[in-house]
Amino acid sequence: MENIFTDEYFMKKALQEAEVAFDRGEIPVGAVIVVENRIIARSHNLTEMLNDVTAHAEMQAITASANFLGGKYLKGCTLYVTLEPCQMCAGALYWSQISKIVYGASDEHRGFRAMGGKLHPKTELVSGIMENECATLMKDFFRRKR
Amino acid sequence: MENIFTDEYFMKKALQEAEVAFDRGEIPVGAVIVVENRIIARSHNLTEMLNDVTAHAEMQAITASANFLGGKYLKGCTLYVTLEPCQMCAGALYWSQISKIVYGASDEHRGFRAMGGKLHPKTELVSGIMENECATLMKDFFRRKR
Repeated sequence: MENIFTDEYFMKKALQEAEVAFDRGEIPVGAVIVVENRIIARSHNLTEMLNDVTAHAEMQAITASANFLGGKYLKGCTLYVTLEPCQMCAGALYWSQISKIVYGASDEHRGFRAMGGKLHPKTELVSGIMENECATLMKDFFRRKR
Repeated sequence: MENIFTDEYFMKKALQEAEVAFDRGEIPVGAVIVVENRIIARSHNLTEMLNDVTAHAEMQAITASANFLGGKYLKGCTLYVTLEPCQMCAGALYWSQISKIVYGASDEHRGFRAMGGKLHPKTELVSGIMENECATLMKDFFRRKR
């Protein structure tokens, strides 16, 4: 039997969250956190609505997952996020010791790789899943803004 | 007339917050954010109590200040924090475009300088204010934990 729970499957869920952000006038980044094929947190960027630079999708997903799990370490968890995390989010993910991060589009200027941030040595990193869809949503957003 | 509102004055307030964290069994880091000699946010590390790796003193102070100011950019604000910010907090401070950061003790291993994080080019950085007092509180905490 084919496994439906692929990286693409969960990235689609993150992309749905990003679309909600888009519709709300937020930079369209969405995230889900998954344990054993179960989504335990869904979130999207809320920096405008909350007037808070810390309200990135990943930050909310980390807090929600820790709350769900009853512990602050996200061992065994996978984050799916439509955009490469920034250094703040990479730093939070570092502290969480999350097992795996999967992101869609790269962020050449503000992504953690360009900014010099570090992930935890225990964290596996996968990039480029549904990259075009994730990047297109960002481009559409900034095109409308202009 | 002597100006009582020195960096030491506000670092003492941050240190008082760190002492509250200490008494609660939290890694003793405290912070205040100041605008025109007025403290608009006070916070201390709450990662254990909240079971949340994102609950560093700086993160809470950023969110509280943005809430107080009614906008997410902390222009004209100074953060006083007893320990060098980590890459997560440096990343949040980057997004906030805060005008000045003053920290007490250095964090050789997990500070943003060792981890490779970046501050905003508009942000002035001052370090070593009340360094001994800030570092001693940390050392006392980890000595007790052992």
